[in-house]
Order: sequence, then structure tokens, then C-alpha cells
Amino acid sequence: MAGSTFGQVFRITTWGESHGRAVGVTVDGCPAGLPLREEDIQVYLDRRKPGQSRFTTARQEADQVELLSGVFEGRTTGTPISMMVWNKDQRSKDYSAIMDIYRPGHADYGFDAKYGFRDYRGGGRSSARETTARVAAGAVACRLLGRYGITVTAYTKQIGPVSVCPECFDLAERDRNRLYMPDPAAAARAEAFLEKRMEEMDSVGGVVECVIRGVPAGVGEPVFDKLDACLAKAVMSIGAVKGFEIGDGFGAAESCGSRNNDAFCTGEAGQICKKTNHSGGILGGISDGSDIILRAAFKPTPSIAREQQTVNRQGNPVAVSIHGRHDPTVVPRAVVVVEAMAAVTVADLLLRNRGSRV
Amino acid sequence: MAGSTFGQVFRITTWGESHGRAVGVTVDGCPAGLPLREEDIQVYLDRRKPGQSRFTTARQEADQVELLSGVFEGRTTGTPISMMVWNKDQRSKDYSAIMDIYRPGHADYGFDAKYGFRDYRGGGRSSARETTARVAAGAVACRLLGRYGITVTAYTKQIGPVSVCPECFDLAERDRNRLYMPDPAAAARAEAFLEKRMEEMDSVGGVVECVIRGVPAGVGEPVFDKLDACLAKAVMSIGAVKGFEIGDGFGAAESCGSRNNDAFCTGEAGQICKKTNHSGGILGGISDGSDIILRAAFKPTPSIAREQQTVNRQGNPVAVSIHGRHDPTVVPRAVVVVEAMAAVTVADLLLRNRGSRV
Amino acid sequence: MAGSTFGQVFRITTWGESHGRAVGVTVDGCPAGLPLREEDIQVYLDRRKPGQSRFTTARQEADQVELLSGVFEGRTTGTPISMMVWNKDQRSKDYSAIMDIYRPGHADYGFDAKYGFRDYRGGGRSSARETTARVAAGAVACRLLGRYGITVTAYTKQIGPVSVCPECFDLAERDRNRLYMPDPAAAARAEAFLEKRMEEMDSVGGVVECVIRGVPAGVGEPVFDKLDACLAKAVMSIGAVKGFEIGDGFGAAESCGSRNNDAFCTGEAGQICKKTNHSGGILGGISDGSDIILRAAFKPTPSIAREQQTVNRQGNPVAVSIHGRHDPTVVPRAVVVVEAMAAVTVADLLLRNRGSRV
Amino acid sequence: MAGSTFGQVFRITTWGESHGRAVGVTVDGCPAGLPLREEDIQVYLDRRKPGQSRFTTARQEADQVELLSGVFEGRTTGTPISMMVWNKDQRSKDYSAIMDIYRPGHADYGFDAKYGFRDYRGGGRSSARETTARVAAGAVACRLLGRYGITVTAYTKQIGPVSVCPECFDLAERDRNRLYMPDPAAAARAEAFLEKRMEEMDSVGGVVECVIRGVPAGVGEPVFDKLDACLAKAVMSIGAVKGFEIGDGFGAAESCGSRNNDAFCTGEAGQICKKTNHSGGILGGISDGSDIILRAAFKPTPSIAREQQTVNRQGNPVAVSIHGRHDPTVVPRAVVVVEAMAAVTVADLLLRNRGSRV
Repeated sequence: MAGSTFGQVFRITTWGESHGRAVGVTVDGCPAGLPLREEDIQVYLDRRKPGQSRFTTARQEADQVELLSGVFEGRTTGTPISMMVWNKDQRSKDYSAIMDIYRPGHADYGFDAKYGFRDYRGGGRSSARETTARVAAGAVACRLLGRYGITVTAYTKQIGPVSVCPECFDLAERDRNRLYMPDPAAAARAEAFLEKRMEEMDSVGGVVECVIRGVPAGVGEPVFDKLDACLAKAVMSIGAVKGFEIGDGFGAAESCGSRNNDAFCTGEAGQICKKTNHSGGILGGISDGSDIILRAAFKPTPSIAREQQTVNRQGNPVAVSIHGRHDPTVVPRAVVVVEAMAAVTVADLLLRNRGSRV
Repeated sequence: MAGSTFGQVFRITTWGESHGRAVGVTVDGCPAGLPLREEDIQVYLDRRKPGQSRFTTARQEADQVELLSGVFEGRTTGTPISMMVWNKDQRSKDYSAIMDIYRPGHADYGFDAKYGFRDYRGGGRSSARETTARVAAGAVACRLLGRYGITVTAYTKQIGPVSVCPECFDLAERDRNRLYMPDPAAAARAEAFLEKRMEEMDSVGGVVECVIRGVPAGVGEPVFDKLDACLAKAVMSIGAVKGFEIGDGFGAAESCGSRNNDAFCTGEAGQICKKTNHSGGILGGISDGSDIILRAAFKPTPSIAREQQTVNRQGNPVAVSIHGRHDPTVVPRAVVVVEAMAAVTVADLLLRNRGSRV
Repeated sequence: MAGSTFGQVFRITTWGESHGRAVGVTVDGCPAGLPLREEDIQVYLDRRKPGQSRFTTARQEADQVELLSGVFEGRTTGTPISMMVWNKDQRSKDYSAIMDIYRPGHADYGFDAKYGFRDYRGGGRSSARETTARVAAGAVACRLLGRYGITVTAYTKQIGPVSVCPECFDLAERDRNRLYMPDPAAAARAEAFLEKRMEEMDSVGGVVECVIRGVPAGVGEPVFDKLDACLAKAVMSIGAVKGFEIGDGFGAAESCGSRNNDAFCTGEAGQICKKTNHSGGILGGISDGSDIILRAAFKPTPSIAREQQTVNRQGNPVAVSIHGRHDPTVVPRAVVVVEAMAAVTVADLLLRNRGSRV
Repeated sequence: MAGSTFGQVFRITTWGESHGRAVGVTVDGCPAGLPLREEDIQVYLDRRKPGQSRFTTARQEADQVELLSGVFEGRTTGTPISMMVWNKDQRSKDYSAIMDIYRPGHADYGFDAKYGFRDYRGGGRSSARETTARVAAGAVACRLLGRYGITVTAYTKQIGPVSVCPECFDLAERDRNRLYMPDPAAAARAEAFLEKRMEEMDSVGGVVECVIRGVPAGVGEPVFDKLDACLAKAVMSIGAVKGFEIGDGFGAAESCGSRNNDAFCTGEAGQICKKTNHSGGILGGISDGSDIILRAAFKPTPSIAREQQTVNRQGNPVAVSIHGRHDPTVVPRAVVVVEAMAAVTVADLLLRNRGSRV
């Protein structure tokens, strides 16, 4: 009910707050026999690590994962895989000034309204810190998907108004710039744009795109648990996401049927495929064998140094300037989180599909 | 697993295919003591009824709901509420020509890939007919929400390129035109646009917007079951939806923090509120007390009379022209379905919130 | 939450009250491709039909099942299977005298305490009528299990103090007597015992035993969803069941390890098997390949004609004599219900087991 | 699916194996505002600690719980409560001799059949070590129930053939003997009986009884999630449990309605109550306001030093004598585990009941 669990067969449960002792996740339902080591998980965590550039926070999080159960002699046993990361650098004093204040764009007020009080030292469960657990679980899901030839790849599509240009798209470039943009020219423009906003003590939003390759046709359930509906929930559950699209997305609303429909055809190996991919790889909630393409819109980081008007717990007006370690945009660090949530979702529906036929 | 159930506390399970004997839904978890009659449900079903204009299909579906359980002496008893509608006008002959063909934009191929065969007489569970059950459940959810002063109102925001203009917005106009657009001038332009596409044997997409008023702050769970994540899944699970937004949505990706953050303030009654509503009523996955505003992008109806190239089950190329009773756009009939899914989601999370405090 | 759903992959949701319009069930998650007709379900319903002997109620329930969805051209499609039975013989006047009274041994008081009021015309959801839906679902589960060579067979083991004697056990006899006892001599003694209790306007309890053959080793989940734990819940959820045992059950509490442990051995076909079966086919919650043997203890029917002291809704003392159509023992009619719940449970865990290995 | 989660609103997820690095549990859905400290949990863990007498293993498990999340300033925050205990004394060498052997009465064979291989160092997830996590979760549940005046108390009712005599019952005696028997004379006889079995290198079963006081009428759901059905699953999911009863249990099968029905009456404070409690506090799956009384039958510890015949993984016959740290009976240490599972179940259904009325 409290919603810290995601998935049905491949099921993850996360715990931990930004300023608590640790964060962690239990993956229940990963099939037995999958090779898995701490290093496989660590490479994913390293990708979301802050402090890698001047656009990400200076906070030093070692983020060393500990794999506590569910693996024996290098393979998963079918029992729950528990992973955790200690919170080493908590510096809770930074936050004391805002203990009673409802920060604009944050969930402070919602938490108080819901629970009667809150852990005022940071975002608690709403902190980006919580995504550490998602990424660890995503690493396991990616290993599992890899076994079936499925890959999940996300990148920064847009920072504020600066977009990757389709003709310049080069995935290899993604890991060569600090913004994870697969287009070096766009990355340079985006950096300049970000610098300017930082000078103005402001923050910026953006868009992450994710491509899932190799999902066979037939994955996803026809009604409520459509593959795209589950992906939507998975991705919208990441903090700061305000929009989700599959395939042509909002563009499809302005299209017409003769253009938006993808013609089926027969591939070289005799397999059924599609001539175009407006559908983004999903029709009627079920994978159609094409690449699955989704996009998530992130709002600007709500924590900004610029002074803002708000109220405190007592309802009195106060001004607040949020100093501390905050990224001017969450987008680059969110790339691996989107991959993680997409991977967990596909892993779950892939396993669920094993029950489709006698 | 098979995903015909939605919700945790207020939980709905639907069944039935477009060309089977009936469609229906069971609502389990509706609290006891809510006044409920068949007429309360029928008014919602009537709103999705086809055959109301030349933009909706001529098929005559009586769609008379039967309330079979869970109500005694006019009030819900707390036990499952079963509702069903018989399929009276099945005309399965219409569909025999496409029995073996994978219609572009449809889930035919996905169903065969998943289950090994399919009910080829129509869309089966992927038919718009399935939404009848959602609307019946939504009617119960709306009654429940009404008890707590919560209203759910959707309308057509856009048909193809024609949008409601914000200054012209007049909700009262919604029910005065066949497209459910709260702007008579836009409705007229959209009708003209639709006529033209129909002449070309083509179809059109659009956008539905939904406003949920009166949700108290504190509803929604902080991590995976965020209120917006659950709404996203609910709405994306409606056939033909390809995108979902909350508040400023994709626009937030191009905004900056100082503009996108909503300042908290104190209202006349001393209550905490917000000066703006870029958040769309949800922060960190929890309602913030403002109106909840969401949008869903619908693709154009995939069934078009124009000839399309595709393949059949054997992988051979075939041409297909889909005649029969198909709307040139699903958007007007989808308005009440979006309301239904939004209402079911909010009802569920509202009840779940009862467990938040000792 | 409201608990009208059972199972995870093979998932059933029931609805309907004894004196409402109908009772029904939706089976979601039955794999596609299973041959299934209404007749397959009807044979199971006929076995729980009342009015078959003087020990079961005179009420004439036609109990003709209607199969409304999920089957196409004689095979399951993978979509929800909806089945219902109309309530034809409701005679609600019979019950008006007890409208305000809390009948001893019934859930009347609990329903009022829980929901604030209740459908006073009969047992509502607590009526034996509700088991109709379980049996219909169980029929589908049995068909599915049959596909994998698994059979589920229950019988009356004990009526009051009269037990089947192990040496006399003859399954073929079960269907030759009205008490479903696989021992004609015991059946005759039990009939005589029942007659006497009926003369005294009293009722009798008993024990049902169920044997599940052909379950391969490896079914069941190691911790909370142990096969025996799930069977226990399934069987204890049948009205009037007060005890559950697997294998030696309570007898094991008085045994010692050297006797209770079953030695593993190698069968003629080289397969691993056990020399004895004290475990009842389940070790550590996982099937061990032997027959699964369980027992359920049923309390005496609480509705008795003899006068009883109790209170009414207002807390005032009243005397009540419950006349009408009540079996002096629920055991014979419960036999097929135990089979149904056991079959649903095994079907669910068998399908869940498909996710155990990469 | 993999079944490491129990409960719906108050939901626990356990992880960890006997010879892995640690065991732990996440409690999701505990309401906010409950005072909770590590010490509150430790007292429960200390009660299941081995090495307390010569009837429990010599293994020194410090079992110091670490409370990692979900508590702030001494109160629960409504977010997941993560707790773990490191495995300090693993001594995996002890188990190497049985690496390939299917121990009688253990789940070794089932694990191999299910997952293809297993962690052969000990019982893995089937070890009694796994109950540590249950007890930690149970401690939280007991704190929550205490807030509502509900207490959960279990004790050893029977060791082999030696039972507590009803007239001698004195709960205060429970904690004064090593077998947790509320009857010193029976405890002495049981100790003598155990000594003798140990000399014979054998083991013994027994019965735990549990009384839950203070549950208001109305808790439990009417159909599948009956309070007693949920308790049955909870308790049967504890390793070695082979039988479960509520109230008169199997005794009710031999009773008659006039004796088994409990007459309702009016208490001194005007409240509705029952003159007797054959029902064990639950009617139709819903609490009736009386004490809830349940019993669990435990089989003898399967690990015995006496030589047993069995087979190994290859199907070859082998003899096995299981030496090491094994209790001759699991019953005394299981007492607190039964309490824990009962408390978790009641906490869950108590919170679920908040959704019963508008």
C-alpha cells in the first residue's frame, strides 16, 4: 500500500532516506542461475554518482554497493537479492535552516499533510538519493535482459531548449560529455546554457530518451498492464518527471492514421517486422518486435539559490534561498535511472509472459 | 499477472471482448454505505455511447448496465460490486475478411505472438468496447469521490492540429458539441478538419485534458505509487494513448526553476495554497491541494478505409481497407474514459491514504 | 484489499451474495490454448448442487453456469474467463424474522461491526452460495492441471465421530453414497448418526481429505508462499473450516524425527522418490514429488432449528430457532469446494514456478 | 511471485540465507507516528536467540538488530522500516559433508528441483535463521497493535506427548522455564522426555498456542482474506508447521451445532459479547470481539544425529548422520515466531479495515 514495491514477478522493494543510515533494495523473483557480482551493479551506480562535473553536486558519495543475499558461487539462487549502500556524507546541518519551511517545488508540504510530520533533514524518500536503490535493481534487471539479448540505452535528448539534432545523433558521443548527450555540438550549447542559468542562480529541465532493443513481440498484458502503461508508471515514479511519451507520443495527436500506422512487412530472415516505428515498439500494450522508444520530461531542479517566497509550517510568509549541493539540472544523472526503471519493467513483463500459453 | 485488475484498495477487474457475449467489471473494495443505483452508472455509460454524431460509429449499442451485486437497499455493502453490459449488436461477419491479416496500428500481431492465436472477430480485449467496463467502474469511483467533495472533469483539448484556446475556454460548452470541446469556435474548426480527413478515408488524433478538483493535500505514495505515476499508468492503459503529462508536462522541460516552482501562500481561510500551479497539483508524487491537471495524447484511429499495405499471418504481403463502423477519431468518446480511469486512481489512493498515520 | 481475489498468476475474483441477482467469478491468467466448454464447468457445479439427498437442502438451485468471456472456438484465449450463475430461487421472505438478530455461529455481528449494516436476507457473502463461484473457478483450474497430469480428489473423511477406516478405503465408493465417503460401511454409520442429530434439531461437523497427485517436485515458494501455506489459506477461507493439516499434521507434533522423516530413494524409472509420505508431499513449502495430502476440519452447520439464546442488534436478549433449508452438515457439499480451492492454489503456484530459472 | 513478501497494507519483505552475509526485513506501510527504537525490536529477537539452554543450539548468534530507515526522532515516518542482522557465526565448513545429499525431512531436493542448484551450506531460505527477519517485523507489528490495546501471546502447549494441563495453566510460568510452557510440572515432564530423545539422537515435535486479545469485532475480510485464513497462511509459512487450528479446530469436527455455537450476550458495559468461545474469536472470517485463539503443530526437527538412509543428487543411496548445532525440538524458539506472524497478520487486517466504510 505504501508503495515502496514495484513489479509483480521481478519485484523490487526499496528503502532508505537521503539522511538516514543507508539506502537499499531487495529484488525478489530474479530467476535462479544468472551470473551476478557486486561489480556488475557497481558500474551502474557509478554512472549516477554525483560530483563528476561542475553540473552535478560536489557531495562525495562513495556509493559502494554491498550484495547481501541471493547469490551463491557467483550465480543468483532464485531467493531475494538484497543490496545496500551506506550513507556516508550526511552533513545534516546544511538543512537545519529549512526545517519548518515548505520549499517551493518540493514535497515538504505534502509529507506534512500526509504523515503529520517529516524527516526535515533533506528530501527523505523524495530525495534523488532514493534512486540509488532503483539503479542497483536496474543493474540486476539489465543483466537478466542481456541474457535474452535485450539492451536498454538512455541518453539526454534535451536540456532546456537545446535538443540533440537527429542527424547528428551518435550514441558513442554520449559518454564523452558530462551531460550524456549523444551529439557533441548540442552538448556544448547545452553546457553554455546551463552555465548561464547557474550564474542566475536558477535551474533547468530537460528530456531523457530511452531505447529498448531486442524485446520479442508479445510482451505486455492487453488491458491495465500494457507494456507502455507499466513503463509510464515506472518512469513517472522518478522524482521530477512531469511527462511521458512512447513512440511519436504527443506528436501522434497531430498526425493522421495513414501516416501514423506502421505497415507490417517481412524481414530478410522471414520474420514479421514494421516499415516504420511511429508506435515506438508497442501496439495495444503489447511489444510489436520493433525498438521500444520512450521519452521522459524532467522539470527544473526545484532547489535554487535564488530567493523565493513561500510559507512555513505555521502558514507565515518566509523567503528562502536554497544553498548547498544541488545540480542545476537533474537530467544527466537521471539517464541511468530511466534505464533502470525501464529495465525493471521489461524484466517483469518478460517473466510474466511465461504464463501466457499452456 | 494477466493484468485485468487495477488498483489496490479500490480495485477493479474487467472482463469481456468486443464480440463475446458481454463485458463487465467487478469493483472490490468500495466502502460500505455509499448510495448507488443503476442510473448513477448508466449516465456515465451513455456519455461513451457511440452513434451520437456522424463522427462516432453507427453501431447501436444499448449499453444498459446491470448491477448484479454489492448493493442492498440502495447502498453499497462493502462487498464486490459486479456490473455487466450484454453485447447485443455483434455482427461478426463484418470482420471475417481480416481474420488472417495483421492490421497496421492494431495489436493483432502482438496477440498472435503472445497467445498463439486470437479472437479474430474484432479487437477482443483491445477493442474500445473494453472501456465500457472502465466507465462503469469509474462511475462508482466518481460517486465515492463526490462524497468527499472531489470532482473529475475531462474534455477534448485538441483534435489534430485544432486546440481549444485558453481565453475561449468555457466548460459549459463541452456538452453542447459533439466533440466535447469547451470552446465552440474550436469545435467548429475541428469538425471541418475531421470532415476533410473522413473524405480522404483517413483518421485523426487528439488530446484529452482532465481536471480533478478537491483532492486534499497528502494523497499519493512517495516512491513508486506516486499519484502522478499511478495516473500515468491508468491513462496510458487506455487504448491509443501515446503520451501523458501532468501540470506543465513537457513544457516544464524547457522551463527554469524560478519560473516552474510554485510559491506557497496562505489562503483566505488560513489554508496553505499555491500562487501558481505549474506542478499540476502534485509534488513529489503527493497531492499539494491544488487542482490536478493531466493530459493524454491519443493517436489517430488505426482503422481507416484507405488501402494500406501489410502482411498476413503467413508473412505474405496483402492490401487491406478497413470498412465498417469506425470513428475517425477516438477522442470524443475517450473523454469519459479518461475521467473514469482518473477517478478510479484517485479513489484508490484516497483510501490507501487512510493507512498513513497511527 | 477487500479480499475477493485469490491467486497471483492464476487469479480468481468472485462476487455475489446468496440473495442477490447472481454469483460469479472472473479467472484472470489462465494460459491460452486450453480446451474449455461450459459443460466442463457444469459437471463440477452439479457436484455441489443441493437437494440431492435428505442431508442437503431442498432448495432448488438450477446453477446453470454461463461462460461469458475468455474462450474462443473452444479454447481459452489468455484473457479473463467470466462465469456466472443466476440466483433463481431467492425466497427472501424466509429470512425476515432474523433481520435484526445476531445468529450464533454466524458472521451477522461481524458484518454489522465492520460495515455498519448488512444484507440481512441471508448469509450474503458468507453464505455457502458464494462457493458456487469457487467451484466454477476450480473447474477451470482442474482442466489446466489435467493438462499436466495432475489430479485433485477430495472426499469425506469423517462425519462427527464416524471416520473412514483406512483398510476399507475405496475411492470408487465415494460417488455411490450421499455423504461422499469412500467407505460404504462408514457412510451407513454416518447416515444413522446424522439422522439422529436431525431429529434433535442439531447439526454435525466433519473432516474432508484431499489428495493431489502428479505435482512435480519444485512447486511452491520457499518463504511466505509455501505451497502448504497457500493451501492452508485457500482451504481455511472456505466458510466453516476451523482446522487444516498437511501430511501427518497434528500427529507430527507427537512423532519423533526418526519416524517422521521420509527417506529419499530412487524409483524404478530412476527418479528420486520417498519411501514414506509423512510430509504429505511438501517439504520446506516446496512439493517433493509425492502425493499432496491435506485435511480440513469443518464445524457443525450453525443454522439449527433448536432454540438458541442470543441478542439482537440493540443488544437485547432474544431466542432464535432457525428454520428453512439448511444441511445438518456442510461436509458432503464442501468436498468439491475443497477440491476447487486446492486446484486453484496448485494451478497458481505451478504457473508461478515458470519464473524460477533463467 | 517469489513470495518473500507478506501482507497488503502492513507489508513485510524478508531476505537473507542462513550462511549468507546477513538477514533482514523491510516493513512497508507502518503508519507514521509510532514510537519505535532498536531496543523495542531487540527484546523480541532476544527471545528467539539460540544457546539459551541445552535444548537449543550452542551456536552463538549475537543477533543485534540494526534499524536503518523509516524512523526519525524516535517515531516512524510512514516510510519503509529496514532492519537487518549480520550473520556472524557462519562456520560453513560444518555443512560440506552434506553438500550433495538430500537430507530427509529437509527441502534440499525441492530446492534443486526448483532452481537447478542450491546454497548447500545450510538451509538457505528454509533455515530457522530466516525467522529472525519475521521476528523483527513482528516486533514492529506488536508495537503498533499495542497502540490499539491489542496483545499477542504465544506459549508452548505441547512437547511430543506432554501437554500443558488446562487447570495448571499459568502464563507467568512461561518465561520461567526453557520450554516456554505455562505449566511448570508439564515443563519438567517435557524436559525429561526431551532428554531421553536426545540420548537416542532423535528429535521431537510439539504445539504452540497463541492468544490475541483486544481485537475489536469487524476485522478480517469476508471471502478469501478471512482473518483465520490469513492467520493460517502466516503460521503455516513458518518452517516445520504441519497443522493449524482456530478455536476448537479439529475438535469442532466432532462437535454438534448446539454445543459449538457461541451464544451472543450483552456485557457489563453494554457491549455485545459471547458466552463461550468455541469460535476462537472469528466467525465467517471476521473477528467477533472475543480472544482469538490459534494453535500450530510443529513436526520434529528433521536434523538428527541418528543415521538415516537417503540418496544424493545423483540418486545413489547414502547414509547420513547430521551432526552440528540442532535443537531437538524447534518449539520453544518458535513461540516468538508464531507471535510475530500473528501480529503482522492482525496489524495488516486492522489497517485494511480502515477502508470498510465511507
